Amino acid sequence: MNVSAIKRTLGSMLIFEAIFFLLPLVTAVIYWERAFFAFLISIAICLAVGGLCLIGKRRDGEVYAKEGFIIVSLGWIIMSLFGALPFWLSGSIPSYIDALFETVSGFTTTGATIMPSGAAIEALPKSVLMWRSFTHWIGGMGVLVFLMAFLPLSGAKNMHMMKAESPGPQVSKLVPKVRQTAKILYLIYSALTLLQLILMLCGGMPLFDAITTAFGTAGTGGFSVKGDSMAGYSVYLQIVVTVFMLLFSINFNSYYLLGRGRWKEALNTEVKVFFCIVFGAIALIVANLCITEQYTLWEALLHAPFAVASIISTTGFATEDFNLWPSFSKGILVMLMFVGACAGSTGGGIKVSRWVMLSKGATHEVRRILHPKQVKKITMDKKVVEHEVVRSMNAYVIAYVLIFVISWLLVSLEGYDMTTNFTAVSATINNVGPGLELVCPTGSFAFFSDWSKLVFIFDMLAGRLEIFPMLILFTPSTWRK
Amino acid sequence: MNVSAIKRTLGSMLIFEAIFFLLPLVTAVIYWERAFFAFLISIAICLAVGGLCLIGKRRDGEVYAKEGFIIVSLGWIIMSLFGALPFWLSGSIPSYIDALFETVSGFTTTGATIMPSGAAIEALPKSVLMWRSFTHWIGGMGVLVFLMAFLPLSGAKNMHMMKAESPGPQVSKLVPKVRQTAKILYLIYSALTLLQLILMLCGGMPLFDAITTAFGTAGTGGFSVKGDSMAGYSVYLQIVVTVFMLLFSINFNSYYLLGRGRWKEALNTEVKVFFCIVFGAIALIVANLCITEQYTLWEALLHAPFAVASIISTTGFATEDFNLWPSFSKGILVMLMFVGACAGSTGGGIKVSRWVMLSKGATHEVRRILHPKQVKKITMDKKVVEHEVVRSMNAYVIAYVLIFVISWLLVSLEGYDMTTNFTAVSATINNVGPGLELVCPTGSFAFFSDWSKLVFIFDMLAGRLEIFPMLILFTPSTWRK
Repeated sequence: MNVSAIKRTLGSMLIFEAIFFLLPLVTAVIYWERAFFAFLISIAICLAVGGLCLIGKRRDGEVYAKEGFIIVSLGWIIMSLFGALPFWLSGSIPSYIDALFETVSGFTTTGATIMPSGAAIEALPKSVLMWRSFTHWIGGMGVLVFLMAFLPLSGAKNMHMMKAESPGPQVSKLVPKVRQTAKILYLIYSALTLLQLILMLCGGMPLFDAITTAFGTAGTGGFSVKGDSMAGYSVYLQIVVTVFMLLFSINFNSYYLLGRGRWKEALNTEVKVFFCIVFGAIALIVANLCITEQYTLWEALLHAPFAVASIISTTGFATEDFNLWPSFSKGILVMLMFVGACAGSTGGGIKVSRWVMLSKGATHEVRRILHPKQVKKITMDKKVVEHEVVRSMNAYVIAYVLIFVISWLLVSLEGYDMTTNFTAVSATINNVGPGLELVCPTGSFAFFSDWSKLVFIFDMLAGRLEIFPMLILFTPSTWRK
Repeated sequence: MNVSAIKRTLGSMLIFEAIFFLLPLVTAVIYWERAFFAFLISIAICLAVGGLCLIGKRRDGEVYAKEGFIIVSLGWIIMSLFGALPFWLSGSIPSYIDALFETVSGFTTTGATIMPSGAAIEALPKSVLMWRSFTHWIGGMGVLVFLMAFLPLSGAKNMHMMKAESPGPQVSKLVPKVRQTAKILYLIYSALTLLQLILMLCGGMPLFDAITTAFGTAGTGGFSVKGDSMAGYSVYLQIVVTVFMLLFSINFNSYYLLGRGRWKEALNTEVKVFFCIVFGAIALIVANLCITEQYTLWEALLHAPFAVASIISTTGFATEDFNLWPSFSKGILVMLMFVGACAGSTGGGIKVSRWVMLSKGATHEVRRILHPKQVKKITMDKKVVEHEVVRSMNAYVIAYVLIFVISWLLVSLEGYDMTTNFTAVSATINNVGPGLELVCPTGSFAFFSDWSKLVFIFDMLAGRLEIFPMLILFTPSTWRK
């Protein structure tokens, strides 16, 4: 175990967190808020602890996959533990567990909140709201990817960390150097966020709302500064958010390929399947809402695409409380939670590419029974899917199911109804945010016990980091010599 | 495609079905019921159609896996289509779709009923009730396994059919000859059924009740001749049923090995894990029921084991309406539906051995990340699990999930609550029988539309035959030259 490398990287992360705190600190100055001191103290703590970690001579040593996974899982936990400080110190969230829940929900771009009501959200200081939304943007693309872009780290370590932090079954480097890849990803990410910001400002959204909403959309997070989420904004703004939620659900590699004029490669199988699912779901929900006379066609055409984009991108913004929609529409939305976004995007869920590969595996098996002599390999976009990827993906799915079931049981100890428990777990492990019944868009996670909140915190982290980093952290043999 | 072989086997199945009808026919004579004529006509139809299929010269030709799968899936559908005749002709179930649902539910040992109320069940003629329960016994071990035991069929064909019909990821022949294996399986099955029958008669159960209950337990079906299922019987009888539900959930190979004195082999990993799950679930539910003061400890110690055995064996008998139990207990029961019985038993669900192998696959993956240089194979009971088995199992799981999700969506078109829809699908695809809310033990599937009933019929068949036979039947390329 290369403890030195782990300690140094975690130290750098805390220094970066102190830098991240500057944005809400400036906001506190602008709005002249007392939360200023909470951020100042948090910065001091992060610098102190981070500095302590960086003291001592750098000892070079091999960094294996194991260290990569530990850095990622521990890093995210530590970022959340320190990121919760301003919420707690400013008194905005009196319970530290609640503050931690909110921070993890932010970094993992879940967007589930423990704020008991919409009014309570609007009463928070602007600087705290800014930090709350900013965590989405930081967590969306990944803290370690950010580190890689700006710190000189060794190549092997970088690749292991990138593998552990990036969502999706495979990691493809855009350019040979990991550091360059990280920079390109953050460039695309920032450019798209800026574009959305400008479009929303053009629609007359106040600057503060526009910045926080852009952060929430870009990270596919879902925290809003308004009690009614996106319901109060104009139709134009809702459409802009709908479009950008979908844009941020697409593999960022596609944008890079688009920029290089490689259209065909950019429009790969996953993107095509993603849009088929999106339009299919919208059509079914619009039909269902119109037939059951819940909405007029025009209302349905506004709300259904928003809800579908919000759920499949795992953002979690809402214009309407879809908990009041008919069972069929709700069923589709719950299904979309598990589908999730494309690999290599900021979105969560199981990811479209995994479903495509898994379905190909099943079709392959049927073909094998029918034609036992033709042995073909599973391909995706004309490339053979390596046996290793398939095996790892299957292990991911089963670990996902086991964590889901255990969480569900632990949460149901509290005695709430099955739909609440089921959708609360699926909204957290898939990093969506809202579920149905008690955790519906107008509800919150406030009523759960601290015990259940810890389960959700684990689920959100496991979902964002795609399970293995968290499993490895809690495997005893990781820590044995 | 070897059409001749398929036609001849299906013909033999119908002749056997005519023979099976003799038991309810005799019952009708004993109780002097008009349903006698319904069975007589059904026998005549089966003999006529079956005879037609058998006419013509036997043309020998190769029988591949494809034909095996088609025979199994078509065979089960045809058995159900004809098996529904007595229900319909006797007027006991006026709608043919309902009669088909009940028959499929019987053969697949699901035990979900469309009889609207307990009183309606008790009002049925005894001969019809006998047929209803007898379908469980026939379907439990498999009609084709029965055929194999008594008809001279070619070895290759037998193995393909056995693979397609037997539950579990692997088929192991007890003795080199498939036919001998089938005979041994039916011998164990009959002996255990007889033992249960005798024990229940000793407990003072009326002969008719004892025979039908034994059929329902042996097949892990769950149809009862009483409106309140097992609630009205004595504690002794309930305990006998509890024990036998568990006994019929164990791989029948274990009994064979026990009989040969090979104790260690009989008590394999799957059986051990199965009993760990059973006792773990019982302990948790008893604790939950006592802490929430739903029952006294003694009541809980009677009802919890019964419910756990009933659900994990996928039987579906009930002594209490567990829909009224606290969320945690309900959550465990729903989870057990998916766990299911052991492979090679008469029970349904995903099967314990699949879960064991899948979990081993996930642990294996974690170990691979930690120690990338040690490449070990997954083993079970000291035997290496073949790559082919793992691949086929993963394909099974994904096909299972897809069918589950699509069924859930189709059923939720009717607008019932999410828990009803979710548990109705899981109770049918896992061949359990009762679910929660509207389909709870005191409820029924009567209120669903014919459309949803067809979905459930497909799910029950797909669940019993472990999906691939049904998928292959509905794959267009199967039928292409």
